[in-house]
Amino acid sequence: ERCFPPVYPLPPPSRENKVLAEDLKTPDHHVERDPRLIRLTGTHPFNVEAPLSDLYDEGFLTTKDLHYVRNHGAVPLVNDADVLDWEFSITGLVDQPTTLTLRDLIQTYEQATYPITLVCAGNRRKEQNVVRKTKGFSWGAAGVSTALWTGVALGDVLARARPTRRARYVCFDGADRLPNGFYGTSVRLSWAMDPERGMMLAHRMNGEPLSPDHGKPLRIVIPGQIGGRSVKWLKKIIVTDKPSDNWYHIYDNRVLPTTISPEESADLPETWKDERYAIYDLNTNSAVCYPAHDERVPLPAGYEGGVYKLKGYAYAGGGKRVTRLEVTLDQGKSWTLANVSYPEDLYRLAPEGEMLYGGRLDMTWRDSSFCWCFWELDLPLSLLATAGDVMVRAMDDAMMVQPRDMYWSVLGMMNNPWYRVVIHKEAHALRFEHPTQPALIPGGWMERVKKAGGNITNGFWGEKKAGESETPVAELAP
Amino acid sequence: ERCFPPVYPLPPPSRENKVLAEDLKTPDHHVERDPRLIRLTGTHPFNVEAPLSDLYDEGFLTTKDLHYVRNHGAVPLVNDADVLDWEFSITGLVDQPTTLTLRDLIQTYEQATYPITLVCAGNRRKEQNVVRKTKGFSWGAAGVSTALWTGVALGDVLARARPTRRARYVCFDGADRLPNGFYGTSVRLSWAMDPERGMMLAHRMNGEPLSPDHGKPLRIVIPGQIGGRSVKWLKKIIVTDKPSDNWYHIYDNRVLPTTISPEESADLPETWKDERYAIYDLNTNSAVCYPAHDERVPLPAGYEGGVYKLKGYAYAGGGKRVTRLEVTLDQGKSWTLANVSYPEDLYRLAPEGEMLYGGRLDMTWRDSSFCWCFWELDLPLSLLATAGDVMVRAMDDAMMVQPRDMYWSVLGMMNNPWYRVVIHKEAHALRFEHPTQPALIPGGWMERVKKAGGNITNGFWGEKKAGESETPVAELAP
Repeated sequence: ERCFPPVYPLPPPSRENKVLAEDLKTPDHHVERDPRLIRLTGTHPFNVEAPLSDLYDEGFLTTKDLHYVRNHGAVPLVNDADVLDWEFSITGLVDQPTTLTLRDLIQTYEQATYPITLVCAGNRRKEQNVVRKTKGFSWGAAGVSTALWTGVALGDVLARARPTRRARYVCFDGADRLPNGFYGTSVRLSWAMDPERGMMLAHRMNGEPLSPDHGKPLRIVIPGQIGGRSVKWLKKIIVTDKPSDNWYHIYDNRVLPTTISPEESADLPETWKDERYAIYDLNTNSAVCYPAHDERVPLPAGYEGGVYKLKGYAYAGGGKRVTRLEVTLDQGKSWTLANVSYPEDLYRLAPEGEMLYGGRLDMTWRDSSFCWCFWELDLPLSLLATAGDVMVRAMDDAMMVQPRDMYWSVLGMMNNPWYRVVIHKEAHALRFEHPTQPALIPGGWMERVKKAGGNITNGFWGEKKAGESETPVAELAP
Repeated sequence: ERCFPPVYPLPPPSRENKVLAEDLKTPDHHVERDPRLIRLTGTHPFNVEAPLSDLYDEGFLTTKDLHYVRNHGAVPLVNDADVLDWEFSITGLVDQPTTLTLRDLIQTYEQATYPITLVCAGNRRKEQNVVRKTKGFSWGAAGVSTALWTGVALGDVLARARPTRRARYVCFDGADRLPNGFYGTSVRLSWAMDPERGMMLAHRMNGEPLSPDHGKPLRIVIPGQIGGRSVKWLKKIIVTDKPSDNWYHIYDNRVLPTTISPEESADLPETWKDERYAIYDLNTNSAVCYPAHDERVPLPAGYEGGVYKLKGYAYAGGGKRVTRLEVTLDQGKSWTLANVSYPEDLYRLAPEGEMLYGGRLDMTWRDSSFCWCFWELDLPLSLLATAGDVMVRAMDDAMMVQPRDMYWSVLGMMNNPWYRVVIHKEAHALRFEHPTQPALIPGGWMERVKKAGGNITNGFWGEKKAGESETPVAELAP
């Protein structure tokens, strides 16, 4: 017997989209898309995020329509009639190399369904680009989305192929043909075999077959790691003793040391290949969604008794949980705890044996956290009206906290300093200003402060303190 | 055939210690100790760290003599003749409850040996105590040590006891009788069963039977987590569906929200019991060991061509690796990459089948990192002589970086901001000043700056910039 309505969230209805006019002249002329999405790299390839408020308003689960997309090139064309015949191979350091069809995968293996938050390693990169141009394009804070994914545990497929003793990595290749070959990357075999890590070969998203932008008909989905490891249009799984040597594995999704400039990076092959700089687990991050950028909050007569509900999201990586979200109105001198909700935990309450979209929904045994959480805090308008800004930071269960300082690196990745919203006093209203706006959209305090001559990485968001000098000051007398 | 000398480090020789005069009047009158250790809580109970330079000089492996000790009360007395008859039980949500002796454990189970770094959650707490007194005593930066531990995988012992479907946690009780009962705590069952996490029942340290201060004759050792989970003098393993309700599990080793003052904390039972605030994995941390506190580096005529080798340690938690260590001489405006060495990886080179101290040394299959690493950087004396301070920060493979700002909390735990050493110019020499000295030992820039009226948590280490005011400054004009 299944409870209805279920105790856990189901996705909002998705839309019937059309091929958009701007895509007609591109190789993606066969792909239907939602016009609300913000294009971050011109018309093509398709790299998009939703307006932050729209993303937040969809709730815990994001529709395929507003889910962020990161495509490196043209979307492979797969006709509906060919979906079940889609072939992929498992080769390399395995005793039992195989080629399977999607039909085999569905018929032969146990199916599971659970919610997974994907995040692009470039989420919030626009902030880094304002500080100093990176090699990456300008994501705002909506490069993050959550869906119910249905598919097969990667570890189950690998176990049947029987990795050899030397096997250490699992490489994935997609079907997207790019200037430097097919897109490909790798993860550690030990992670792939670990049920707590939840790596999946997915063929459904929110109960529907995958749409072209999300990997139709088959993709890898890796919880807790950057989206760049969740290879779409999956064609090959190769078990190896070394990390992938795919161009995109080496020259993308890395945080090089902050010392390395774009110019220097052009000639450092050994640095690029150093796996210590490859990004796997997400770092801990958060953002304010309400107040939105440019939102105006009226301050009518007698507003002093009123409150404004500050709202946003937070996430951590590697199965870790965000354990607290703190808000400051005095630039970090003091912090207030926000209320955090974990809709993911509602799925753990599903009755034993629950099936969803053809997969087992069995999350009770799993300790790790795969999804974003939401936080909110009622703030008295009287406090907001006297503060210059509001900032938030999350802490994860390894007691790592988002830092005040940005870690700039040449690819512009994993940006996670305190998320700062400036508060402007206007006549009878407060106006809020986020750090940036995505892509080339102007706006945000970072560009404004920088243009006014402020050094936005000085530890005080570019504010000039009276008499501040750029040279180090003398110590207090010993 | 075994290589000799091995490719991996072996421990430095340990000493024959004596019972020290100061211990004679305490319940620990039977415990032999090294007089070099710095006592952090008076004479008794015994809570100690080594002088930071001595710790560093021992190298990758710390002897039992200099290994930090955290005792809550009297050390249980166990005679050598009774060691093998030491009994411990496995009960709770298991199909097969058992009582074993240490002899059973050694004879019936596979033994393993590998290096594990233990760190007290209070490492570097003195810095927090200078900011505002916490409820904890004042560790310096030497509450960290590494040894070769020999014993049995906790998961092996649990597997034979067969946890039931409801089982979620593993509680440990020690034999140390304390004001609030025996010391006890818990970890998640899924971690205990995960070989990558490497939890162990250990009966040897650096090849010797455990000394009394380190858990004689049997203890838990948990890599990558705070030392407070590695219960000594192990008597009971209890499998449960809830975290431990032991007083020490609830009221120790937690990072409460920074908003909570010592006074407020006295009446917040639900906050204390919130598992989100319990510390398991270590957070990422680092310290400068050389130059030592108060070290003087001569600047003879013509010193400009000389270099000083800056040296220290770093660690991360939960099996993660420190992937970079960066040094700044300009308060975070720019950073230089230090060279990091990972002696732990040398054990991965041991030949197949290698045995050490009666246990298999087989680390090739394991991806996770359990040990500290060392970093060094040659700095031109000309740069040191013109800098006001030198600071270091580590980043881990989840791309979390040590923050500029301290996270103060009521118990004073997991302190990991950038480690700052102030550089004083003297006649023909540089003198270096660490943040603090352990226990009640005076010294360090934090106390000095605070006494001089500086606010050491202002984001600039209490330095007063010319004209700085304590009130928030106005935004740059919009």
